[in-house]
Amino acid sequence: MNHWYVNEDTFDPKLKTLHSQETVYTIGNGYFCTRGTFEEGYPRDNSATLLFGVFDDIAIAKEELANAPDWTSIQLFINRERFRLDRGKILSYHRHLDLQHGLLYRQVDWESPQGIRVRITSERFACLSDEHVGAIRYSVTCDESAKEAIDIALWASFNVAEGNYDVMHWEPVDQGHQNSLLWLQTETKRSGIQLAQTMSFQANIADLQVEMVDSDIAPSIRLSGELAPGTTCTTEKIVVMYTSRDSSNPLREALTHHQNLITEPILQEPDIHNALSIHAHASQTEQSTADAMQPYDTLKATHIAAWHSFWQIADVLIEGDSKAQLGIRYNIYQLRINTSAHDSRYSIAAKGLTGFGYRGHVFHDTEIFMLPFFTYVLPHIARNLLLYRYHLLPAARKKAASNGYEGAQYPWESTLNGEETTPPSIIHPETGEVIPVLNGFIELHITASIAHAVCQYWHITGDDDFMRNYGTEILLSTAQFWTSRAEKNPERHDYEINNVIGPDEWHEHVNNNVYTNYMAKWNIQQAINSLHWLHTYDAEKAQELLLQLHITEQDLESWQDVVEHLRILQDPKTKVFEQFENFFNLEPLDQKKYAGRRDSFQGILGIDAIQKYRIIKQADVLMLLTVLDEQFDQETKEANWDYYFPITDHDYGSSLTPALHAILACELGHTDEAYNLLMKGALVDLENLRGNTPEGIHAACAGAVWQAVVLGFAGLRVTDEGHTTTPHWPDGWKRLAFTIHHKGQPVHIDLHR
Amino acid sequence: MNHWYVNEDTFDPKLKTLHSQETVYTIGNGYFCTRGTFEEGYPRDNSATLLFGVFDDIAIAKEELANAPDWTSIQLFINRERFRLDRGKILSYHRHLDLQHGLLYRQVDWESPQGIRVRITSERFACLSDEHVGAIRYSVTCDESAKEAIDIALWASFNVAEGNYDVMHWEPVDQGHQNSLLWLQTETKRSGIQLAQTMSFQANIADLQVEMVDSDIAPSIRLSGELAPGTTCTTEKIVVMYTSRDSSNPLREALTHHQNLITEPILQEPDIHNALSIHAHASQTEQSTADAMQPYDTLKATHIAAWHSFWQIADVLIEGDSKAQLGIRYNIYQLRINTSAHDSRYSIAAKGLTGFGYRGHVFHDTEIFMLPFFTYVLPHIARNLLLYRYHLLPAARKKAASNGYEGAQYPWESTLNGEETTPPSIIHPETGEVIPVLNGFIELHITASIAHAVCQYWHITGDDDFMRNYGTEILLSTAQFWTSRAEKNPERHDYEINNVIGPDEWHEHVNNNVYTNYMAKWNIQQAINSLHWLHTYDAEKAQELLLQLHITEQDLESWQDVVEHLRILQDPKTKVFEQFENFFNLEPLDQKKYAGRRDSFQGILGIDAIQKYRIIKQADVLMLLTVLDEQFDQETKEANWDYYFPITDHDYGSSLTPALHAILACELGHTDEAYNLLMKGALVDLENLRGNTPEGIHAACAGAVWQAVVLGFAGLRVTDEGHTTTPHWPDGWKRLAFTIHHKGQPVHIDLHR
Repeated sequence: MNHWYVNEDTFDPKLKTLHSQETVYTIGNGYFCTRGTFEEGYPRDNSATLLFGVFDDIAIAKEELANAPDWTSIQLFINRERFRLDRGKILSYHRHLDLQHGLLYRQVDWESPQGIRVRITSERFACLSDEHVGAIRYSVTCDESAKEAIDIALWASFNVAEGNYDVMHWEPVDQGHQNSLLWLQTETKRSGIQLAQTMSFQANIADLQVEMVDSDIAPSIRLSGELAPGTTCTTEKIVVMYTSRDSSNPLREALTHHQNLITEPILQEPDIHNALSIHAHASQTEQSTADAMQPYDTLKATHIAAWHSFWQIADVLIEGDSKAQLGIRYNIYQLRINTSAHDSRYSIAAKGLTGFGYRGHVFHDTEIFMLPFFTYVLPHIARNLLLYRYHLLPAARKKAASNGYEGAQYPWESTLNGEETTPPSIIHPETGEVIPVLNGFIELHITASIAHAVCQYWHITGDDDFMRNYGTEILLSTAQFWTSRAEKNPERHDYEINNVIGPDEWHEHVNNNVYTNYMAKWNIQQAINSLHWLHTYDAEKAQELLLQLHITEQDLESWQDVVEHLRILQDPKTKVFEQFENFFNLEPLDQKKYAGRRDSFQGILGIDAIQKYRIIKQADVLMLLTVLDEQFDQETKEANWDYYFPITDHDYGSSLTPALHAILACELGHTDEAYNLLMKGALVDLENLRGNTPEGIHAACAGAVWQAVVLGFAGLRVTDEGHTTTPHWPDGWKRLAFTIHHKGQPVHIDLHR
Repeated sequence: MNHWYVNEDTFDPKLKTLHSQETVYTIGNGYFCTRGTFEEGYPRDNSATLLFGVFDDIAIAKEELANAPDWTSIQLFINRERFRLDRGKILSYHRHLDLQHGLLYRQVDWESPQGIRVRITSERFACLSDEHVGAIRYSVTCDESAKEAIDIALWASFNVAEGNYDVMHWEPVDQGHQNSLLWLQTETKRSGIQLAQTMSFQANIADLQVEMVDSDIAPSIRLSGELAPGTTCTTEKIVVMYTSRDSSNPLREALTHHQNLITEPILQEPDIHNALSIHAHASQTEQSTADAMQPYDTLKATHIAAWHSFWQIADVLIEGDSKAQLGIRYNIYQLRINTSAHDSRYSIAAKGLTGFGYRGHVFHDTEIFMLPFFTYVLPHIARNLLLYRYHLLPAARKKAASNGYEGAQYPWESTLNGEETTPPSIIHPETGEVIPVLNGFIELHITASIAHAVCQYWHITGDDDFMRNYGTEILLSTAQFWTSRAEKNPERHDYEINNVIGPDEWHEHVNNNVYTNYMAKWNIQQAINSLHWLHTYDAEKAQELLLQLHITEQDLESWQDVVEHLRILQDPKTKVFEQFENFFNLEPLDQKKYAGRRDSFQGILGIDAIQKYRIIKQADVLMLLTVLDEQFDQETKEANWDYYFPITDHDYGSSLTPALHAILACELGHTDEAYNLLMKGALVDLENLRGNTPEGIHAACAGAVWQAVVLGFAGLRVTDEGHTTTPHWPDGWKRLAFTIHHKGQPVHIDLHR
C-alpha cells in the first residue's frame, strides 16, 4: 500500500459509487476544486468546478457556489466511435489520486465496439503554484497488434451546460479564439460575476489537423489525424481561469497569463498549425524537444514543488498503520485544496469546494474543527479565515440588533456578506412535509466559536498585531452580544440563556445549554482579558475601541457579573454537567432495540419524538471539555465521558464529532476507542461511511481528524512557555511525527514508541 | 390595424417586457410551442420549447414540462461581429405574429459596431400540417451603399444549455450528422423520455462554405462566405422532432421524416456542398429555382392551408371593433396552438405550452373554461381532452380511497398519471415564509367540473358512443365520490359538504360552498340520468358498469336522496345564494380605501386576514349561475349579480373570471360592463395586464373570452332541437359571425346589428 495513493482498480458504474468517487477524486488548489468526473463525461455524472467565493443568488438560501463551465471535457473518437466508460469494453482500469503531488491519474485499456484496442491515460492537476491554472495530459496509444493506423479525434471543450445538479448559473457573454488560445467569457445569472476561461490544447504529433470551434456554450479545440499501431498521441489541455473577483478585466488577465505560460509567439491564424508544441515521448523525438514548449511539464514541476513545500510543513507521519497514514494525509489534502492561500473574503464551506451540499455556506465547522489545523500549521491562512469573520462584523451587528441585542451575533450559515443564510425551512422533496429549520434563529454558539478561534490563534501564533487590529474587536463585540442575550434572574441572582439549540441539534428550544453558556461566559472573560492586554499594548487603540463600540466602565462591571453568575448546570456530587435544563429527566432510549439500524435515531424516531429522549446527535458537553480542555480536571472529564459517550449516536448522528471525541478518549486512556473514533472520521469520505459523500467531503471531519492525531494521540499541548506531548499509541503505531508553528517558529515533533 | 397581426415597431429591452413579449409571440401547433425569443439569443431571455405531455420529474410538485433543447438558434456574424439586439445599433425594428397563418416575422435594420449596415429578416412557424416540424427562414441583406462585399457567417444550432428558468432537464445521449442532416438525441434526466431533433440548414447562395459541427450540447451547421452590396442571403432552417412518446425509435423516425421533407438524394459527404438548395430571391436566380428543393416554401404552403382550414371553422368575426377582433382571434389562436389535435394522454395546462408557470399542470381551467370552445368548434379535440380524464379514473379512484371516500376524486392539479400534483406547500422565495397550499386537499369542485364537461360535450355533439364507452363511467364514478363525501345531518335530514375551498380561493375551510354543493348535486343527478339513458341505449353495457363499479339499486336510491337534500344555502326572500355558511356575516370591506391599489386584496390584507372579509377572488356563485345557466331564473341571476359582482376583485383577483362574468352580464343587459370584462380577458396577455404574462399565457382566460363572445354577446343557446341567439351589441360592433358544430353538423351563425 502506497501511503500517498487513493486508488481503485475496477470501474463501478453504480451511480451512487460514481458520485461518491467523484467527490473522493477531487483535485484543487484553494482557488478552485474540480470533482473527479471523467474527461469524456458519463451519463448522469455530477461534474463540478467550484471557485472559492464565487456565488450566484438562489431563492430561500440566498446564494450558492456556482458550478463553473466544465474545463476538463475531452472527447475522444476512435475510428469515429466515441470513447466513454459506458461504451465498448473496459479491458483494464486503474485510477489513483496522488496526494503527495496533487495529481489525478487514470489508465484504461479499452476495446471499441468495432474491436479496436487502445490505451487511454489521463493525468490532471489544479496547479498549486499557479492557482488560476488547470492542466490535463491525455494520451491515446494504438495497440501494437492493430493491423492498420486508426483515426483519432480529440475534442477539448468548455461546457456551459452544467449546473449545481440541474440548476444552471452561468450565461455566455462572449467567446472567441486568438492564435492557439480559445476563450470563453460567462457571467453568473444573478450575482453578475464574470468568469474568463482560456484553453490551449496541443499534441505531440505534428501532422494532426487542428480546428478551433467557436461556440457560446461548447467552444472547443479539435485535433484529428491518424495513429499508427504501437504509437501514442499525447495531448495537453491547459486552462486558465480568472473572475471579476480577481481583476476588473478577467479576460485580458487570463489571456495574458496563458500566453506567458505557453510562451507563445504572436502568430497569424494560418500558422497556428505549425505552432503546436512537440513533446518528447519516444527517444527518437528527443532532439526536437529542446526548442519545444512544454507548458504541462513546466507547470507540473512547479506544482509538484509547491506540494512538496506544503507537505514539508503539513505532513503527519504515522508509521506502522498504512490505513491511518493514508487517512490522515487524505484529510490534510482536503483541508489544503479547499482553502485559499490568500483570500480573506470567504472561508471554508461545510463541503469545501468539492460538492453542492450546504451550497458553499460556512458554519462553525470552520472555527471549531478546521481552524486549529491552520492555526498550528499554516497560520497565515488561519489569519485570513479569521479576517473573513472580522469583515463580517457589521453584518453580525445587524443580526444582533434585528433580534434586539447588542454587539455582534454571527449567522449560523454565512456566505459573502455575512447575512444569515440558513433557510428558515425546507420542504421534504418527497413527502412535501415542511421542516422548519431553527438553527438560523436560535443556534447561537457559533458566535463564541469564533471568539474561541481568535484566542486560540493568538495563543499559538502570538500575533499581537492581529489582536490589536482585529481580534480584540471581535472579542468585545461578541461579548456585547452575550451580555445582552443573557437574561438576569433576579430571584437567584444569576443569568440564563434560554430558548437555544446547542451543538446537539436533536433538542430544540432548550434552556441553559451548558456548551452555549460556558462558551459565552468564556467569551466574555476573554474579551475583558484582551482589553486589559490592549490597554498595556496600545492604550490609545484600546480607548478608541471602547469609544467606537460604546463600552463603558459600567458595562465592563456588568460583564464581569455575567461571567461570575451565568448559570452552568452541573451535578456537584457527580461532576456531570447537565446538557440543558431537565436533560437528566429525559426518557432514556433503549438503543439495543435498534441494533442493526441504518439511520440516525432522529431519522427513526422523528424530529418531534426524539426531543424527549436522552440520546444526542453529537458531542455537546464533551465538545466543551475538548475545546476548553484546560478548564476542567480529569475527574470531571471522566464523569462526563462515562455519562455522555454511551448516549451519543456515533454512527449516524453528526459526522463532525467521532474524530473530535478521540482527543478526550486519548486523554482518558481509552486508546482503542479513540482509534475507532479516529478511523470513523478519517475514512468517512474515502469509504462513504455516511452515504452522503456524493454531495461533497466532510470538511469539519477532516479538521477533527488532524486534531485527533495531534492533540489526541500525540497529546500535544502548547503553553506560552513551550509545548508538551503525551503520546497514546494505538496498536501498530511506531512513530508519529509532524510540525507545528509556535509564535512564528517551526516546531518539529517526532515521537517514537 | 390589421385584424390578424399582433405587432410591435420598437424593441424594448426591459427584461419584464422582453419576457412578456416572448410569451405573446409564441408559435405552436399543439405538438410543441416555442416562445418568441430571438434566434440570435438575448441576455437573460427565457427561451423555451415545450412539447405536449413531455415531462421530467421534479421535487415536491412531481413533474414539469421539460424545456427542450432550443431548436431556433441562429447566430449571425457580419465581418466577424456578432449580431444581437443588445449590440450595435438598431436602425429599424418590426415584429409581427400573423395569427391567420401562424407565422412569426421580424425585420431589423442594423448597424454593426464597425458601421456595416444590414437588413435581417426572420420568419418562423411550428408547422400545423406536420406537427413534428419547425421551420425558420432567415435572411441577411447587405446594404446597397456598402463599398465592398461583407463576410457573413450563420450558425444554426441546437442548444442543450436551456432549462425551465435555470433547471436543466435534458442530458445528451448521442449526436451526429448524415448527409445534410445534423441530429441530436437527448433524454430527460429522470423520466427518461428520449427526444430526437434533426436539422437541415441551407442557403440560396451557392458559394457558401458549409460546415457540420458536431457537439453534444451545441451541434451546428455553419454557413459562411461573402455577400455583395445590395444582395441577400436567405437561409432555411428546418427541424424535425420526435420523442419516445411518439415512436420506439424517435431518431430513425425523425431522420426519415426529415429526409422525406427535403427529398434529399443520398450524397457522399464531399458532395454535400452542391446539394444546397437554391432559392429564387432576385429575378436573375429564378431560372435555377425550378429544379431546386424548397422545403420551406412547400411546408409553409401546407402549413398555411392548415391554418386556413382551422380558421374556416374556428374564426369569430367581429366587425366594427378592431381591438376586440384581434383579441378574440389571439385567444382562439392560443387555444389551438396549446392543444394536441390527436393526443389524449395529456390535456391543456394552465399556461399551455407557452411558459413555465404552473409547470404544465392541468386544472379545472380546462373543463370549465377551455373545453366549451373545443366542444362547440372542434369536438374531436374535446373528445380527446375528456378521454384524458377517463384514462385517469384509476388514479382518481385511488385519491378518493386514500381520503376514505368512494368513487373517483380528481386531483386539483394533474399531469400524466393523474396523481395529485399540487404542491402541499410552497416557501416564499424572498421571505422564506412557508405557505401551505390546501387546494390539493380540499378544493373539490374540479370533480364536478369534469362531469359537467362530459355532459356538455354529449349535449352538444350527441356523441352517444363516447357516453356509452367513457362518459357514463365518469359520471357514475364522480357521483360515487360526491355521495360518499356528503355527510348526512340526521337532525335536519339533509346533507352537507364541509371543509372545502370553493372557486373563491380566498376563503378556506368553508362549509357548504354553494358552487361545490350545487355542482355535486347536479353531477349525481346527471349520473342517474345517463344511467337511465344507457339502460335504453345498451342495457348490457349499463349492467356491466353497475357490476364493475359495485353500484346497487340501494345506492341509486341513496344518491337520489342526496340530490334532493344536499344543502344549498339561499335566502328565500332575496334569492341570493350564500356562498358558504356564514358568508353573509363576514365583515364588509371598504374597497374605496384601496383606490389605486396595484395588488390583489389578498396580497394587501394577507392570506389569514382576508378570510374574515366579504371580498372574493373570483366568480363563485356567479360562476354557478353561468355554468348551469339553464337551472336559474332571471330574478335569481339579477339578485346574485347585484350582490356578488361588487364584492369581486376583478382586477387583481383570478384572471379566470372577468371574461366569464361577461356571459351573465350580457344576459342581464349590462352590455357595457360585459364589454369591459371581455376586454380585461381578451387583452390579459397582449397587454400583460396582470404582470405575469412572462410565465405563460392565461389559457383559461382564452377559453372564457371565446365563451363571452359566443355565449354572452351572441347569446347562443343550444338545445336538442336547435339553437337560439340573443345578441347584445357593444358600441361599434356591426356584425358577429362564427361557426359551431351541433350533433356533427356545422352551424354558421352570422349576426348583423
